[in-house]
Amino acid sequence: MRDVAIIGVGQTPVGEHWDMGLRQLALGALRAALEDAGIEQVDALIVANALGGNLSGQNHLGALVADYAGMTGVEALRVEAADASGGLALRQGYLMIASGAAETVVVLGVEKATDRTGSERDTALATVLDADYEAGPGATPAAIAALLMRRYMHEHGVGLEQFEGFSVNAHANGATNAFAMYRNKLRPGAFAKAPVVAEPVNLFDSAPEGDGAAAVILTSAERALDSVPKPVRVRGSAAATDTLAVHNRRDLLFLQAANLAAGRAYEQAGIGPEDIDLAELHDSYTVLTALQLEAAGFAARGEGWKLAAEGALGRDGRLPISTFGGLKARGNPLGATGVYQAVEIVRQLRQDAGENQVPDARRALALNLGGLGGTAVAHLLERGE
Amino acid sequence: MRDVAIIGVGQTPVGEHWDMGLRQLALGALRAALEDAGIEQVDALIVANALGGNLSGQNHLGALVADYAGMTGVEALRVEAADASGGLALRQGYLMIASGAAETVVVLGVEKATDRTGSERDTALATVLDADYEAGPGATPAAIAALLMRRYMHEHGVGLEQFEGFSVNAHANGATNAFAMYRNKLRPGAFAKAPVVAEPVNLFDSAPEGDGAAAVILTSAERALDSVPKPVRVRGSAAATDTLAVHNRRDLLFLQAANLAAGRAYEQAGIGPEDIDLAELHDSYTVLTALQLEAAGFAARGEGWKLAAEGALGRDGRLPISTFGGLKARGNPLGATGVYQAVEIVRQLRQDAGENQVPDARRALALNLGGLGGTAVAHLLERGE
Repeated sequence: MRDVAIIGVGQTPVGEHWDMGLRQLALGALRAALEDAGIEQVDALIVANALGGNLSGQNHLGALVADYAGMTGVEALRVEAADASGGLALRQGYLMIASGAAETVVVLGVEKATDRTGSERDTALATVLDADYEAGPGATPAAIAALLMRRYMHEHGVGLEQFEGFSVNAHANGATNAFAMYRNKLRPGAFAKAPVVAEPVNLFDSAPEGDGAAAVILTSAERALDSVPKPVRVRGSAAATDTLAVHNRRDLLFLQAANLAAGRAYEQAGIGPEDIDLAELHDSYTVLTALQLEAAGFAARGEGWKLAAEGALGRDGRLPISTFGGLKARGNPLGATGVYQAVEIVRQLRQDAGENQVPDARRALALNLGGLGGTAVAHLLERGE
Repeated sequence: MRDVAIIGVGQTPVGEHWDMGLRQLALGALRAALEDAGIEQVDALIVANALGGNLSGQNHLGALVADYAGMTGVEALRVEAADASGGLALRQGYLMIASGAAETVVVLGVEKATDRTGSERDTALATVLDADYEAGPGATPAAIAALLMRRYMHEHGVGLEQFEGFSVNAHANGATNAFAMYRNKLRPGAFAKAPVVAEPVNLFDSAPEGDGAAAVILTSAERALDSVPKPVRVRGSAAATDTLAVHNRRDLLFLQAANLAAGRAYEQAGIGPEDIDLAELHDSYTVLTALQLEAAGFAARGEGWKLAAEGALGRDGRLPISTFGGLKARGNPLGATGVYQAVEIVRQLRQDAGENQVPDARRALALNLGGLGGTAVAHLLERGE
């Protein structure tokens, strides 16, 4: 397998883009990435999208985006695994380059999440769960996250206030990210008084779905050296699954897929969690952030929450996470989220993150989850020397 | 890149399976393919599905199928490109093996197309078109096929009766396929008297959507030699796109994506259309079959229909197509169709096709289209010597 590098990134702000459809959002990110890489054409296009069929009446997004971007003829496909679509699309792009099947690939995540409201939207969002055994009986992703959070609090003897640090950190970082959906810092006391979404999950425990698109351009590491001044290497790429229905898991409080994916990526890169300078985790719910810190080796079982409580997750902390706001403040554009993570990490590793820069960031982990962890994708990115 | 081979295939009958959901259909095909390959586990699962989110309220099918098949932990994703999902999933599986990222991969196509009816079903089926410029204004896939067919008849001076041979051949082959949705032969005169779906497309010009699942197991060509007596080599694998909205095409009667994909696959294999012993084309509409024969080099422009009229497409003809009934008689399980094509070709190349056997079949082309050809995927399969 050939070594693979990222030579271009692009993104649109995450938010409620009522004036743009899937194709317009996609084009914005795609053009920015191509310009960043200094190229005009690619061999293949991989589109990550979770709910186009449900929320926009639009499937077949590979052809749609290739068409609208003036790339007709190019190979294109859509990858879907709920909000892990982006990470898995990045992995497919990685494999196309690694195999030698393509010289340049664009991985583009795009989602229109806010055009539908009420039960129509809830029904669409619930298609990432098990339709027969979770969504059918009436569960929503937030309701299941609430069950996990309550169990976590019970098993590990922690209170709701111990999760506040995750949101405070995310919002502090989102405040200086021009692409973030929410740029407000969390005021003291706001977390404790936040409206409840699904008890005990409150408004600040859960990330907002937003519209957005992000893109990365991949090529071989060898070619990357001749292309751009600061290529970023993909050192590890792995994915894994867990039971789709959360109630079937042997251990409710262990994200098996995240553990497997991160473990495989570490092994591929020959490094461990101690070598990671920053991580973009899938913080759709604060309890999932705690569980990912444990699954990816940054904290012992039952102690992920401590990193937040101790303030270790800030830009100057021991393990900076959500460095541009994470899903919580940057917003969760579902199928595009995994690509946003990669874009943000590339900016960090290039030392091009402005106010959000993590000092001397060299190696980073992206961990992208589908739903409540039925799918997990891990990528290890490293700055070229 | 490593050479890739198919070592196992499985399928369920195509039809209206009201007693089975996506997971049950998938498991049937998956188990059959694993048994055929003589293995119990794989490194990765790639699921092809077009409309699970719209018709079953179920996205995130990679994790769903891995879970239900008892493969939790395995890497899994869903690939979607309308009814070209199956071909593109096969291509992603091919890349995983070719790159060395996996030793064994199962590519599984599954679709539940018949649970919804009326406008709900029509709306879902139209998500494969351009939502803003085709489906939105009211077009359906059949309506657009009708415009293409009328134009073909006008430009090339052919009548509706010239398309009859495609359906007669498909139904003759479907009659002896235990997995086919329709096993009736077409009676003389039936085509001319068939009810009109969208003038001039009639009931026998258009393939029925059905429920079904099919699976193939891939491994490296080297490993395949030690695994099974009759591995089938993947000699070419390619995909391409055309404009999604048909009215934007420079030439309405040329399937540019099919031409590009087939051309790339031929080039990869170092062969041409004259070397092909049989082809599984995407005969969702008879006019598309004629256009594919032209795009893939089997007939000159405007002369694809002649192969049907001359009776060249039967099992003993010059170019056997739809050898198990094609989409027309075997049925079109949308996202699974491209995988069914591969399964059927493998049976032919193994000389294991029973009454449907094409004598001495050695090399075959699978051409899989998304919608009206916005996506095309070509695979060239060859029997081991």
